[in-house]
Order: sequence, then structure tokens, then C-alpha cells
Amino acid sequence: MSRFLSNELNNLEAYVPGEQPKDVKYIKLNTNESPYPPSPKVIEAINKLAVEGLNLYSDPDTRELTLSLAKFYSVKPEQIFVGNGSDEVLAFIFRAFFDKERKGCFPDITYGFYKVYAKSFGIDANQIPLRDDFTIDINNYINCGRNIIIANPNAPTGLVLSHEEIIKILKTNTDRVVVIDEAYVDFGSKSCIDLINSNHNLIVVQTFSKSRSLAGGRIGYAIASEEIIEDLNKIKFSFSPYNINSLSSIAGIASVKDEAYFHECNKKVIRTRERVKEEFRKLGFKVLDTKTNFVFVSHEDMAAREYHKKIRENGVLTRYYDEARIDNYVRITIGTDEEMNEVMKITEKILIEFASLGKVI
Amino acid sequence: MSRFLSNELNNLEAYVPGEQPKDVKYIKLNTNESPYPPSPKVIEAINKLAVEGLNLYSDPDTRELTLSLAKFYSVKPEQIFVGNGSDEVLAFIFRAFFDKERKGCFPDITYGFYKVYAKSFGIDANQIPLRDDFTIDINNYINCGRNIIIANPNAPTGLVLSHEEIIKILKTNTDRVVVIDEAYVDFGSKSCIDLINSNHNLIVVQTFSKSRSLAGGRIGYAIASEEIIEDLNKIKFSFSPYNINSLSSIAGIASVKDEAYFHECNKKVIRTRERVKEEFRKLGFKVLDTKTNFVFVSHEDMAAREYHKKIRENGVLTRYYDEARIDNYVRITIGTDEEMNEVMKITEKILIEFASLGKVI
Repeated sequence: MSRFLSNELNNLEAYVPGEQPKDVKYIKLNTNESPYPPSPKVIEAINKLAVEGLNLYSDPDTRELTLSLAKFYSVKPEQIFVGNGSDEVLAFIFRAFFDKERKGCFPDITYGFYKVYAKSFGIDANQIPLRDDFTIDINNYINCGRNIIIANPNAPTGLVLSHEEIIKILKTNTDRVVVIDEAYVDFGSKSCIDLINSNHNLIVVQTFSKSRSLAGGRIGYAIASEEIIEDLNKIKFSFSPYNINSLSSIAGIASVKDEAYFHECNKKVIRTRERVKEEFRKLGFKVLDTKTNFVFVSHEDMAAREYHKKIRENGVLTRYYDEARIDNYVRITIGTDEEMNEVMKITEKILIEFASLGKVI
Repeated sequence: MSRFLSNELNNLEAYVPGEQPKDVKYIKLNTNESPYPPSPKVIEAINKLAVEGLNLYSDPDTRELTLSLAKFYSVKPEQIFVGNGSDEVLAFIFRAFFDKERKGCFPDITYGFYKVYAKSFGIDANQIPLRDDFTIDINNYINCGRNIIIANPNAPTGLVLSHEEIIKILKTNTDRVVVIDEAYVDFGSKSCIDLINSNHNLIVVQTFSKSRSLAGGRIGYAIASEEIIEDLNKIKFSFSPYNINSLSSIAGIASVKDEAYFHECNKKVIRTRERVKEEFRKLGFKVLDTKTNFVFVSHEDMAAREYHKKIRENGVLTRYYDEARIDNYVRITIGTDEEMNEVMKITEKILIEFASLGKVI
């Protein structure tokens, strides 16, 4: 820390992203990326001409990408805000709508960044415990008097709130923003975008990082009322007006246009996931009913920390959280069928090793 | 504005970027882009393989690009912070080092975004008048008790402070950060990077947008003490950890490696600029002694506002600021020789038209 740092930031906490190892070749199932490359149309679109044009600034209004998304989701372009990954979108949302008086709340177990934002923006944020089965008890959010952020599906549990439950939260908190982070919605749950026009307090956040195979392209977006989007644009134009680079914009547009590929990849992930859930259960794992591109698993006879370590030694990266309540779970991204076959084979081997050593927790 | 926006942001001011027209084909000399495409090595590096890899997250540490820059500038990688354009770098600098007590100051005529940042972060910022000839009087910055931001060369004047002057400012403000924004330094002035190790309060900011023909790639960086860079990383990891997308990173690395192309393009811009300065003077323009990739010109017999409008009607975009002291100047980016020949021809024509109408101010 330098002696120039503002005292207001003394307690700043950093988000710790999943490992991106450069050395060994791993089966990388630790950061919920898609195992499939972006649409062939994306690869086609980022051609010599596109790269040659990098001498010019990107469009600060990201107009063409916004129009594509508006068409895809049947909303007005004025209802869409595009950011440098949904992390930037969430940061702008915190900056715009949260302050000393507009406090926040979110589940105790959820995307770890919400806590980091709250701390970094000096926001009082309640972390509301999930039930013992890791479901969200919406009674805790009824008339709660705070801005609300819920990842739906939630991470790292993968569990989903129903439309009816979200509507209840929206209708009883009309003076507060309700942010529904749908990073994983394309893997089999229902989006809230259709609730935007009847709920002016709703902000839906989505990303190109998971279901569109563009994590490296950094594109996220918010869909909400025109007024809310106007606020987010105000923040952007006072912070980083050209936040979307030209090539990401081109990639995003091409990706949205290729609906067939989008649905095909997501179907493949869902099919692999359902099979893998079953196989983990057969090996004695507890497997939450995830609707995402990852599973969250736990085994009575094997400490998750050990499993995480052992499977890494066998060439597979997964994510382990050394946190209360979830410290006996491992989060595993759904890879290709071949990768998951390898995971199941290695897991079985590790279980046998554990059994031979006697029960280890 | 939505009713959810934080009251703290009621006075938010947005930066207004130069026009990026999509309709007509203009000679675009309004946002100081390079007229030359990025290095052929950049075009080569962004190949099919690179685009296919977009399903994976970019490196949150932007390690390889940081190493390239460290080598190029002979500093430690720990002394470099890379951001999504220098706008994001500057925003992070404001967030890190400015607050209610750590006030700011900068010239009254300079990059318009400094004022926007100050307002948006609620920072008390003095705007210190330039001298009548648009030079900076460094006496105003000696022991000034505030954080200082100076664009060097300054924009839109193009004028330069000497190393000796900057050292005086640094040495008399050791308890405050001094940010030297060197967006245009590669067009013939001297960088302060060599002062980093002996001045722990110095932050040099540079960009790939001008001299590296990568405005659309959005890459900026700060070079400073390891402690200051550590602070900026803390801000980044609590805001947008994956702020550099994979393709921009690849473009940046390839660009830094191609030193020959970098120097060649900058030499061409400088040569064209010096010729254009002379030609504007011959037409009776007052031309500041710019060391950038733009000229800032004024004519006694023709209101700048009118010239800006007329030259636009003739297919050339330039930048006009309707602001006190500079409202009779037009800023014109240096294009290719062919583009500037066209500009001079059109300018001469407009001058003759004006003369035939009688003197118009």
C-alpha cells in the first residue's frame, strides 16, 4: 500500500478469481467457462479488416451490439446497458444505486463479488443465510427495505428461484432495486427479462462469458427500465465511455446472430450435466439440483478439500471454497463429454484410494 | 434519471466523446486517432486460434502484456498497471488517491475528462488558468498541497512542459501524487518514466490509442512505484478483475514487439504535422507549437466555429470546443499526407469564401 491511498479504501477487499494456470495443461473446470469455442460466425467476423480498423475508437454507445441484444430479447435498445463483462456492469450498479442510505442485501452463499463490491463502495450489506438445504427463503426478502441482489440460478449452489418467488420479491420492494444476476440462466432456467416492463425496480444482469463461449471477450449487460439504463450510462460516461473494445463488440454481434449455435452448445452442456449429476450420485456424492454449467458436490466419506487437491494432482482444476457451510463441497464446471468421462474415472480412483485409507473427513 | 439513483450522483457530469459518425464517409480528424492501421504483427497475432480461445477468461493479471511493457520501458513489471483504456486507468487513479481531503488540481484548459472525474468522485478540484499563451505556469503548482494532474503534452494545446519543470513540481509536492498523462508523448516529447524511481509520488499514464494505432483495442497503462501500482491493482480487483479482454491483450503484446513499425508511424505523423503547421501559418493561421498528433489553430479573419462547420460540410471532421478562451480554435488530428493535402485545399477554399463575404468573427 502506498501512503497516497485514500483512507476510505483501507479496508478494500479484492475478489480472488479462479486460478488461470499457464504452466501445466489441465482439464480446466474451475471458472465455469464453456468447453466449446465461440460460434464459427464470431471467428469469421474477427477478420483482417476488423483488426485493421483498430486504429479507430470503438463506438462509445455500443450501438450495434445493443440493437442485436434488443432484438434477441424483444426489448427496446434503451433498456440495455453493455459493460466490460458483467463484473463491470455490477460495479456500475453498485455505484449508481447503492449508498449509505440505500443499503443492500444478498444471500450468505452466492457470487463472492457482491460482498467485495459492498465493502469497496462502503455499503452496509446484509448477508442473509440460505436455508440448510441451500435454497433461498424468500420471506427474508419480502418488504426488506434494502436493495437486493440475487444470482438466479445461484452460485455456487446452482439452485433456482421460481418466477412467482421473484415476482413476490419485486412487488414488495418497489422502492428498492432488485438485481437478478442471470449469469447461468441459459442452462435451463427461466429469465426475468419478461418482468422488466411491469417492474421498474428490476435489473436483470447477464453475460457472454458462459453460455456464449466469450469469457475472454468481456461482455456483460443489464436489462431494465429506460430510466435505470440512462443512470448506468451516466455512470459509464463519467468513468470509461469507450468501455467495449471494437473486437469484443464485433464478436458479441456475431454471437447473438448465431442462435442455432447458442442453443446447440447449451443443450450439449445440459445433457452432459444431467448425465454427470447421475454419475456423481451413483458414486455416493450429494449433488445439488443445479441448473447451471457446473455441479456442486459433496461426499460423506471424503473431505472436499482433499478431493479438490487430489483431482488437481490428477490434472483437473475445480473450485473449492474454504468458507463456512460450503467447505465440504467442490464446484466442478461441466466440460465436454470426454473431459467429464475423465473426471468420473479419476473421481472413482480417488474414492477407492480414500476407502483404502479408511474414512477421512 | 430513475428514482433509484443515489443522491450523491445528482450532479454527475458525462464526458462527451468526439463524434463517431456511422453515416457519411468523412476524413476523420476529430478524435486524435492514428491514420495508420495497427502493426502487421497485430493483424497476424489475432488469428483463428486466438479467437477460438475466447471461451476462456482472459488473464486477470494481464501478465504477458505487462512483461512486454516492462521490458520496453526498462521498469519492473510490478511498476505497471494496465487498464481498459487510459480512461479507466485515470478513473482508478481518482478512486484510489483522491478524496475529500486529498483534493486535486489541473490546468483550466486540458483533457476535459479530469473535470468529469473530479465531479463524479466528489473531489474538490482547482482548475488553474494557463497563461495567455496557453503555457502552464509551474509556479502555480509549487507546494500546492493538492494532487496534480497534468497532460504533457497538454491537450488540446499540444504544448509541452520540460523535464526540469516537472521535476520541480514533483520535488515540491512529495506528499501528493503527481499524475503526468502522456497520451501524446510519442510524437516528439520526452517521457517522465525515467523519473519514477526517484519520485515515489509520480504516476505516468500512457495509452495505445494514439501512437500505437489501437484506439479500438482499449489499452492504457500507468507506470509508477510498486506501492502505487499495488493500490491500483487493489481497486481493479474490487471492481473489474478481468478488465483486459484476451484479444486486446494479444494486440498489445504484438504491438509492443514491433518497435520498428511504432517508430516509423510516429515519424510519419511528426513529419506530416511539421509540414501542416507551416502550411497553416502560410494561410495566416495562428498555430500552437504542438508536439502531438494534432494541431490547434486559430485564424483572425474567420471564426473557428464557422471554420469547423464549413470544413465538416466539406467532408472533414475536426474538434471544436465551445469553451471560454479556446472558442476561437479548432483542433485537427494529423491524418495521412493525402488527407492533410485535402484539408489544406479545403481550408484555402473556405478562407477565400470568407474573404469574399468580408471579415467574419
